[in-house]
Amino acid sequence: MCPAKVSGDGQRGWIIPIGGGEKKVGSPPILSRFADLCGADNARIAIIPTASQLEDTGHRYEAVFAKMGVGHIDIVNLESRGDCEDAENLATLAEATGIFFTGGNQLRLSTVIGGTPVAQQIRKLNAGGVHVAGTSAGAAFICEHMIAVGKSGSTPKPGMATLSPGLGLTNRVIVDQHFRERDRIGRLLTALSYNPFATGIGVDEDTAAFISPENLIEVLGSGGLTVVDPSGLEHSTMATTQQGKPVSLIGIKLHILIAGDRYDLTTNSAQPGAPPD
Amino acid sequence: MCPAKVSGDGQRGWIIPIGGGEKKVGSPPILSRFADLCGADNARIAIIPTASQLEDTGHRYEAVFAKMGVGHIDIVNLESRGDCEDAENLATLAEATGIFFTGGNQLRLSTVIGGTPVAQQIRKLNAGGVHVAGTSAGAAFICEHMIAVGKSGSTPKPGMATLSPGLGLTNRVIVDQHFRERDRIGRLLTALSYNPFATGIGVDEDTAAFISPENLIEVLGSGGLTVVDPSGLEHSTMATTQQGKPVSLIGIKLHILIAGDRYDLTTNSAQPGAPPD
Repeated sequence: MCPAKVSGDGQRGWIIPIGGGEKKVGSPPILSRFADLCGADNARIAIIPTASQLEDTGHRYEAVFAKMGVGHIDIVNLESRGDCEDAENLATLAEATGIFFTGGNQLRLSTVIGGTPVAQQIRKLNAGGVHVAGTSAGAAFICEHMIAVGKSGSTPKPGMATLSPGLGLTNRVIVDQHFRERDRIGRLLTALSYNPFATGIGVDEDTAAFISPENLIEVLGSGGLTVVDPSGLEHSTMATTQQGKPVSLIGIKLHILIAGDRYDLTTNSAQPGAPPD
Repeated sequence: MCPAKVSGDGQRGWIIPIGGGEKKVGSPPILSRFADLCGADNARIAIIPTASQLEDTGHRYEAVFAKMGVGHIDIVNLESRGDCEDAENLATLAEATGIFFTGGNQLRLSTVIGGTPVAQQIRKLNAGGVHVAGTSAGAAFICEHMIAVGKSGSTPKPGMATLSPGLGLTNRVIVDQHFRERDRIGRLLTALSYNPFATGIGVDEDTAAFISPENLIEVLGSGGLTVVDPSGLEHSTMATTQQGKPVSLIGIKLHILIAGDRYDLTTNSAQPGAPPD
């Protein structure tokens, strides 16, 4: 699905894919910045643990946000498609200033939430200024085109990435997570080269891409953000290469960004952050 | 990508996926109706033969449309991504009242045209009233989520369909073509069940779904149109089923429509056509 339209003088909320394995103890920079954006002690954060098969995932994040002093935290349990039509769940989400998708399996998210009133509502809330973060599977799900599953390795090959429709908060990027840790540049290149209209962002663990309402990415966390820009692609054999064979791609632009660096998705340009003191 | 926004009091053009193998001699009903919609002798039809590897594909359709009396026909050869930035090609498309994508390989279309000025222009033209038809690969490409490749068979299995971002004229439907002839209901069910937000339409050969500006489908041609409506899906194992194993899906609605039948994509309801005389 597509991003919902921002009305009149409104402003879209931030969209924050996190690469998984983000720091949760001490003063965790990524989760703290998300909580601050949502209003800190005035924040109302709704946690959606649907991707996870573990019972305590929602409560674990609840404890982290509570320790930061977040004003109000709800765990919205969406276990079935019926839950995604439930008036009480919709009412809880309607009050949120921030929505957080936990990790797990992104196909749990798309199969349970896709096409339901909850999906539509989250798109509208984000267009109305509510911030949406997701870690690991939650990060993948945020996009219009979501990498559902795939294979490791650095050389792109047809069939290396399986795309599924995602939640559709943004179609500027296709996100991959646990990026360096699971050797995923090949599958991100594969996903992009099916139709090189989007920008790929590979998010390492404990790293996040804070995407502003103006489509400016700010990098935060201890790992790297790999930006794959296919807008200047000159040649591709994706249409003719056999399954499992390497694909020729000429003219891809690549940036490795770290905390403090920025990337403008409108102009396809990267800016380094301030040098360390 | 998403459909472009229709401005003010404007009206979107028709979107016409054809299942391939459409009649081209005598008075071919599908191509004639497309030509009539585009203005018949006042029509300006732009043929895009990019999907095909055969040199005469564009000229073959040119001859068919010329025989019908279409006023002006252009073949727009988009062989490379550079061709999709070419000012002359963009100018030719800007004058068209109808655009026709031939068959071939839909990954040729998405890899050559995806993310280029031509792709953006066609979305804007369609939002401004220009009709867009595509046969076979051209039909697949029209959607936001395009079935790129897949396997035959009637039971859905993970990995049976590979999705790619398409041109994005509509996100209401995911189209599959040569539907009955190539036994594709399993792959269409697979594609839909990754995220059951869209309606699936399986288009037989010599059959077309004429999708009106109001999202009403009218069926034309000698075969059937299989409509797969997952909006009432109650249960799915897609998120947990292993590659190659059958997926459980409970609550899918199915319609087989023939020429004259209609389907409303807004209300998810089918209406039979008038009985034959």
